[in-house]
Amino acid sequence: VQLAGDGFKGIMRAMSAESAYQSLKSQGETLASLGALRALAWWDEETMMPAKGIEWRGRQLETVARLVHEMFLRPQTEEWIAICEDAGFPKGGAEAANVALWRREIDIARKLPADLIAEEAATASHARVDWAAARKASDFSAFLPWLEKSVELRRRRADFLGYEDHPYDALLDNYERGMRTRDLRALFARLRPKLVDLAARAADRAATMPSDLLAGDFPVDQQIAFNRKVAEDIGFDFDAGRIDTTTHPFCSRIAPGDVRMTTRYRTDDFTGSLFGILHESGHGLYEQGIPSDRFGTPVGASVSLGVHESQSRLWENHVGRSAAFWEKWLPVAAEHFPCLAKRTPEDALRALTRSRKGFIRVGADEATYDLHILLRFELELALIEGTLAPKDLPGEWNARFRDMLGLDVPDDARGCLQDIHWAMGAIGYFATYTLGNLNAAHLMEAARASDPALARASDQGDFQPLLGWMRERIHRHGSMLPPAELITRAAGSPMDESAFLRHIERTYVRD
Amino acid sequence: VQLAGDGFKGIMRAMSAESAYQSLKSQGETLASLGALRALAWWDEETMMPAKGIEWRGRQLETVARLVHEMFLRPQTEEWIAICEDAGFPKGGAEAANVALWRREIDIARKLPADLIAEEAATASHARVDWAAARKASDFSAFLPWLEKSVELRRRRADFLGYEDHPYDALLDNYERGMRTRDLRALFARLRPKLVDLAARAADRAATMPSDLLAGDFPVDQQIAFNRKVAEDIGFDFDAGRIDTTTHPFCSRIAPGDVRMTTRYRTDDFTGSLFGILHESGHGLYEQGIPSDRFGTPVGASVSLGVHESQSRLWENHVGRSAAFWEKWLPVAAEHFPCLAKRTPEDALRALTRSRKGFIRVGADEATYDLHILLRFELELALIEGTLAPKDLPGEWNARFRDMLGLDVPDDARGCLQDIHWAMGAIGYFATYTLGNLNAAHLMEAARASDPALARASDQGDFQPLLGWMRERIHRHGSMLPPAELITRAAGSPMDESAFLRHIERTYVRD
Repeated sequence: VQLAGDGFKGIMRAMSAESAYQSLKSQGETLASLGALRALAWWDEETMMPAKGIEWRGRQLETVARLVHEMFLRPQTEEWIAICEDAGFPKGGAEAANVALWRREIDIARKLPADLIAEEAATASHARVDWAAARKASDFSAFLPWLEKSVELRRRRADFLGYEDHPYDALLDNYERGMRTRDLRALFARLRPKLVDLAARAADRAATMPSDLLAGDFPVDQQIAFNRKVAEDIGFDFDAGRIDTTTHPFCSRIAPGDVRMTTRYRTDDFTGSLFGILHESGHGLYEQGIPSDRFGTPVGASVSLGVHESQSRLWENHVGRSAAFWEKWLPVAAEHFPCLAKRTPEDALRALTRSRKGFIRVGADEATYDLHILLRFELELALIEGTLAPKDLPGEWNARFRDMLGLDVPDDARGCLQDIHWAMGAIGYFATYTLGNLNAAHLMEAARASDPALARASDQGDFQPLLGWMRERIHRHGSMLPPAELITRAAGSPMDESAFLRHIERTYVRD
Repeated sequence: VQLAGDGFKGIMRAMSAESAYQSLKSQGETLASLGALRALAWWDEETMMPAKGIEWRGRQLETVARLVHEMFLRPQTEEWIAICEDAGFPKGGAEAANVALWRREIDIARKLPADLIAEEAATASHARVDWAAARKASDFSAFLPWLEKSVELRRRRADFLGYEDHPYDALLDNYERGMRTRDLRALFARLRPKLVDLAARAADRAATMPSDLLAGDFPVDQQIAFNRKVAEDIGFDFDAGRIDTTTHPFCSRIAPGDVRMTTRYRTDDFTGSLFGILHESGHGLYEQGIPSDRFGTPVGASVSLGVHESQSRLWENHVGRSAAFWEKWLPVAAEHFPCLAKRTPEDALRALTRSRKGFIRVGADEATYDLHILLRFELELALIEGTLAPKDLPGEWNARFRDMLGLDVPDDARGCLQDIHWAMGAIGYFATYTLGNLNAAHLMEAARASDPALARASDQGDFQPLLGWMRERIHRHGSMLPPAELITRAAGSPMDESAFLRHIERTYVRD
């Protein structure tokens, strides 16, 4: 890193595209190293840090964020990008893709004024605290001023960023590059009646099933040992990662060779921690599959939330809720947990595909989950459009919830106050969960159809060919292609909802 | 952090001392945040990081070191310091002390050319690898080229830094501000005959004692629980710190409120992990006692290795090897380790003060430890003076070792290849271990003499008054005073060897 000084422009003009590109790459590695330390500090805060470390940890994270921001926004960065653009690297190569993504990043950064960024950060920080208290007390009025502020800030953000059709496009694009409101609206409109119908039929089937098929006592150390066996078997590399315990499971790539995931444990249920690990392993396998020599450049990162979630949902729901998985793993589970000795693989699968309508998104099963997302998508779109006033959110939430799931929301804590996203200003985020679910089903069908040996192996509990397919068609590409194009090329056809609906019908409705 | 730009000098000249000082302070906090992340990354590498994370961890550490170096050496820093010096803050205040220490730091940094720093870093990095292999094979010739290089680099460093009397002064000063070769030489000359005599008499006493007084089986989880009780009782704050496991115990302050120490466990001996924790708790209590509101400025850091080691040695040797400690803790130990049921506090103390001559410094007891240091001090002084050629080191080491400890060194692995220090270029470091031992004894005598209630409490196993004394007279001062002056003011008299010699005589020679 060099600091700006006199004579700078003169030097820049004489620079070759090759050396401008190398400067961007080297700066990217410096920023990635700082980013890695930030990720490490965040992981450490969640898993290891003593309580009194919090004050200075906050300052460390702020300092790094500020340095990264300042360094990327130095005048050199834009000059280097311009030199590379003028030269024109060959289309389809990593250089051209990186230059385009750097351009995208700096354009976005330059469009957003510093005082908006600062106001967003300050709002998120205060709103999170007040949201937590409001949820606890189920007191919407305590959160309302922050919701109003969040919506206003996001509308201003959309105006600064610009958009063709709809202000919500500018927000969506932040989480899922290239995703448009009109496409999502059409998708959710098609999904709505089908999801409502499937949820009802899944509930009917569940009513005929016993609820205690996997009850018992599950010591934490045995859960840890069993989960590790499963994660290792599906391909997670423990020389390049680890598992720790947190209240909210997550997965974070610190740097190549260092991917860390977490889960949580209950002694009356081993499937919670196991499915946490299957889910996070999906994220982790993706991160471990991105070529490490591209780390520090834009193409060396995961491409979007919707693709990331496709990988976690694949292992959680398409592998973890398959007959082959339980034929292989129930006997091993029974060695760790003697209380399972009399259970069959069919028992396990039935217990894990028993649908139950509920109020809380994060506790929802696959057959109802996307209705929770649909609700949030419709509401935040209305908030951004201005057709729904923030003060009217609870009434609208509860009415629509009843429409879709046939349940009366008992209080706002179990209604519109349940998620942290809006308190953080994350409007446009929820839809990526559904994109992940649909992508997962679409990729799974495509993988099986494209390779009969892969399908046979998967049906026998060997998921290595499936991982190989994902490595080849998804993971190794990083951010080379926009998300929708990546999925289309991988699957051989554009993503639609049909594979997902077939999966829900087969898994949760038919017996 | 602002980057240099046009018009910079004009702005600077109009700056007030107050605002120059605030700029230095704010820059110091930024650098301290980066330093904290570096400390965290290093701790994580030793305790948590998966193996394959090592490549990028190295790059992260290099990146941060480079940024810190570049940021501190920007032209502003020196201008701010000069403005503060011109204004002249009141003597004895934190501002004046900080300005003087920033001046010291930047003068040192400016005296050392970048290519020397780079060559030192590259040499250390390669030498460490070859040293480890050479020690394993006990092959001095494989390490000799690196030793020659290290000595040459350190002589060049001394020339760049400058010195009045002796080039070794310039190296010592890096580890113990203000320490001079002539003083150390006189000290070690006085110590030598007394240490040789004490070591011989301690060995005679040990020959009459049983060797298995604390033998048994000590499960690791019980050691962890017991050590934590002890560390908590002497005052280590576990809301502001933690203990983990590493091959080589250490203590690191990440930031205020976050001090982390480590130890290692053997199931046939609980005293190794316990004394590791007592030692590191001494370091940790010092770090926890430095005022957090000064973090990021020079006075907000520990003052020297010799003072740091005085605190670790105090708790390890003056508390941990006292009758009062074992009268209090042996019954608790026996609850954790039933094999100790029949042991008395006297048994424990005898086992822990049984001296044994050996070849390895890190395994040496208090009665012989400083002879190992004396040997290294004499040899590295001769290497820097040029009166000893690196190729002649093994012969000289072995001859002097026999002189002092009466043992024939069987091979270089147990001789001059045993320590990593010279491979890292750390010449001038070893003496600080002995300074720590002498400081600890000097402070302990002064504390007891200055406050009879403190002495009585310590004799009853209550070490809180002792901690309070150290907090007040050592910890809270950070780097406000040079090390020797800090000790003199705390104890009421300059440090000398007499208290230490009395302690060894009393503890290891008399029964």
